[in-house]
Amino acid sequence: MITALCPGSFDPITNGHVDIIERASRLFDRVLVTIFVNSSKSPWFTPEERVELARRSTAHLPNVIVDSYDGLLVEYARRHGVKVIIKGLRAVSDFEYEFQMAQINKHLAGDLETMFMMTRPENAYLSSSIVKELARYGVDPVGLVPEPVREALRARAAERRRR
Amino acid sequence: MITALCPGSFDPITNGHVDIIERASRLFDRVLVTIFVNSSKSPWFTPEERVELARRSTAHLPNVIVDSYDGLLVEYARRHGVKVIIKGLRAVSDFEYEFQMAQINKHLAGDLETMFMMTRPENAYLSSSIVKELARYGVDPVGLVPEPVREALRARAAERRRR
Amino acid sequence: MITALCPGSFDPITNGHVDIIERASRLFDRVLVTIFVNSSKSPWFTPEERVELARRSTAHLPNVIVDSYDGLLVEYARRHGVKVIIKGLRAVSDFEYEFQMAQINKHLAGDLETMFMMTRPENAYLSSSIVKELARYGVDPVGLVPEPVREALRARAAERRRR
Amino acid sequence: MITALCPGSFDPITNGHVDIIERASRLFDRVLVTIFVNSSKSPWFTPEERVELARRSTAHLPNVIVDSYDGLLVEYARRHGVKVIIKGLRAVSDFEYEFQMAQINKHLAGDLETMFMMTRPENAYLSSSIVKELARYGVDPVGLVPEPVREALRARAAERRRR
Amino acid sequence: MITALCPGSFDPITNGHVDIIERASRLFDRVLVTIFVNSSKSPWFTPEERVELARRSTAHLPNVIVDSYDGLLVEYARRHGVKVIIKGLRAVSDFEYEFQMAQINKHLAGDLETMFMMTRPENAYLSSSIVKELARYGVDPVGLVPEPVREALRARAAERRRR
Amino acid sequence: MITALCPGSFDPITNGHVDIIERASRLFDRVLVTIFVNSSKSPWFTPEERVELARRSTAHLPNVIVDSYDGLLVEYARRHGVKVIIKGLRAVSDFEYEFQMAQINKHLAGDLETMFMMTRPENAYLSSSIVKELARYGVDPVGLVPEPVREALRARAAERRRR
Repeated sequence: MITALCPGSFDPITNGHVDIIERASRLFDRVLVTIFVNSSKSPWFTPEERVELARRSTAHLPNVIVDSYDGLLVEYARRHGVKVIIKGLRAVSDFEYEFQMAQINKHLAGDLETMFMMTRPENAYLSSSIVKELARYGVDPVGLVPEPVREALRARAAERRRR
Repeated sequence: MITALCPGSFDPITNGHVDIIERASRLFDRVLVTIFVNSSKSPWFTPEERVELARRSTAHLPNVIVDSYDGLLVEYARRHGVKVIIKGLRAVSDFEYEFQMAQINKHLAGDLETMFMMTRPENAYLSSSIVKELARYGVDPVGLVPEPVREALRARAAERRRR
Repeated sequence: MITALCPGSFDPITNGHVDIIERASRLFDRVLVTIFVNSSKSPWFTPEERVELARRSTAHLPNVIVDSYDGLLVEYARRHGVKVIIKGLRAVSDFEYEFQMAQINKHLAGDLETMFMMTRPENAYLSSSIVKELARYGVDPVGLVPEPVREALRARAAERRRR
Repeated sequence: MITALCPGSFDPITNGHVDIIERASRLFDRVLVTIFVNSSKSPWFTPEERVELARRSTAHLPNVIVDSYDGLLVEYARRHGVKVIIKGLRAVSDFEYEFQMAQINKHLAGDLETMFMMTRPENAYLSSSIVKELARYGVDPVGLVPEPVREALRARAAERRRR
Repeated sequence: MITALCPGSFDPITNGHVDIIERASRLFDRVLVTIFVNSSKSPWFTPEERVELARRSTAHLPNVIVDSYDGLLVEYARRHGVKVIIKGLRAVSDFEYEFQMAQINKHLAGDLETMFMMTRPENAYLSSSIVKELARYGVDPVGLVPEPVREALRARAAERRRR
Repeated sequence: MITALCPGSFDPITNGHVDIIERASRLFDRVLVTIFVNSSKSPWFTPEERVELARRSTAHLPNVIVDSYDGLLVEYARRHGVKVIIKGLRAVSDFEYEFQMAQINKHLAGDLETMFMMTRPENAYLSSSIVKELARYGVDPVGLVPEPVREALRARAAERRRR
């Protein structure tokens, strides 16, 4: 059985993430979607909220498990028997950063693979930052995020404006 | 009549910006140079100062109007009948970021175009950050910024050193 | 009146080209779509055939004129009063090549501008070479090229297989 | 059962290819290593020779099958129940080309995935062209290609020099 | 006599830095390794500590001198008779940033050259940030930094955890 | 004494090449400018003509020696005591290719360094191919190539047109 890991800050999960997770879930026996707690600066959502949103957005995928972790990725991978990390690539800048990460992870854990999938072209501009930026200006991120996230973003944006 | 928009934080306007604005002003009927207020973190100049510096630096271009806005770019474009956004590209990293922005703007406003012009090679290293960095060390940014900006930078750098 | 030029080998014109031409035709008074004869090695279509296919594919755009030329781009631009060259960019590799071309053209003709538009994400992989490659294997390029080109490609591929 | 495909011209197979194939063979049930006949111009080795060299170089991998095909990749993938194409990435230029290929393959066969693995840093410069270039000058490609290829290259280079 | 300068924040020096310094020390008469004080945000080590670590890590190189400076690079270069700045390049993103820096330095000091050396492939992912990130999680950066740095990182990480 | 090598096909030498050679000649004791015979396909100039043009274009640089060689670069470097190869970089695509070459040369000759200098921004589009393309259309490459090359290009272009 091959366990794959989709790591990220998922603050919040977008349709770009869900697309990669769906495609990975067809190729591997089990896919862990894991929120790495420290990787997002001044997040909009708590780790618990992010887990909940990711869970509701991937509920249709039986072999996907949502989790969170506060620590080093390779340590988590070792503990959970992860054989391969899955990352979506959108652009050249992603590519370079992710390659450096993949190299350092291979230095730390030689048998841990990283595989890259390209995002669908229509998602190439999508990121958690972009949907928060839009929500901040009151733009409804329809078509960019799963339904549960859409509502959570609207509510959180309104709260933040009141502060 | 085609209205073009040169958006930015212009903190402050440089010779690189002025070159793009001049060239755009020869191709389109009206060019809006608009300071987007929120896009610069810990700015050296207030939005009002930035507008004033941009106005004095483009006073020789009759079809250029300097403005400022605190909100979403596509919203501003819709209100002012903008048909095309003009962006200068210096390098591959610019290219990727600007392409993402152009894609998201097209998602939000399907009939709003973005066109890119390449900066002159001698301006390829120029940016508002670089001229502030130089001013901070007391280097006179001659040839890098318009005359009114040169003086404003010197004065502001001296003020900041006194703090 | 601003005349824009969309230069290329157009061997043959694809939906990616037509998209850029349509968008340019909304921003400029007159758009010349010009087949540069020498720029394609071992072409599938003669210059006359390429002009004919481009004409039929842009017949719905009243301010677009299809032409062909055997010579230097800046010379053609000077003769026809072209103020701006329009190029579609798909990826970083396009960007670098086109920037070199834009720079050399600016060296040869200082007042001739080049502006870049990004291709729609779903066209990012599209090129004349790709559609010929597909046609060579008998794949119908539906959705990738205008209707007249689709038929011409099928016919030409069949001819080439018989040789 | 997931079948993965490592396509290429393999003219000849290098240690860079073998590394990717080994790593893929640990993640997927069956890995097809398929020589696409038309993709190499003026090859040094016939398709039969390339199959033989690839076979001897992957003989230690029980779930790897070497094959050859003269036709379209998506057609081959469909016939053999391939779920995922595996490509090694060395550099940004690889990345862009491979992304275009992945996109066109997804256009032609929507459920066929492409996944990318990064080459080991010490193989980043390795390619079939480079080892042929070295062999041409009489350099022994030790450490760059599997043993059977090393001998075949030496013999072929000597033959080519005699012509 | 040619004096070369390896500038940086060196917070702390890594094996990647030492490799570039060693190679530069074979090509130039004198190599200054200079800590530029302001270039690191929220550093782990004081300038004095960074000088000390760099000194101990380059003690085997007789023509290398470690120094620190709080000011503009071109000013420092002028004062110390530096003819050439040496920078290591790891990836395309480095390349673009370093090219901009090289251009601005050439604008400020026309006779000051910048030369680039590529990092060894196995160091391509190495950076001061990465080793601090690893140390933060208690990972021993063996093989990534010189011995004196390894101990200093461990001690500092422990201190920071206690805060 | 440090000997540097500027290798290339120099078909023909341009102002971009001369700029790099001049700058290298100020940093190293001896600079070999060596035409590698096989590296240009369907050249305009014979190796002897290219040597002659390079010699006349670098006659003002006393420590520069022009040479030609038909063989492997690392072999030539070993025979002539070359310590460092100097390459000019114009763009990201140059960077990747040159990095691969530098890596393979380091694999073949571990103590042979490669150093990169950036071309001046105004030369970023310059290449031997571009000046031949211009000459082919009767454009005088004034400011792009040294005077002796300018005349040779004009004469050769006229000859080629008569064929």
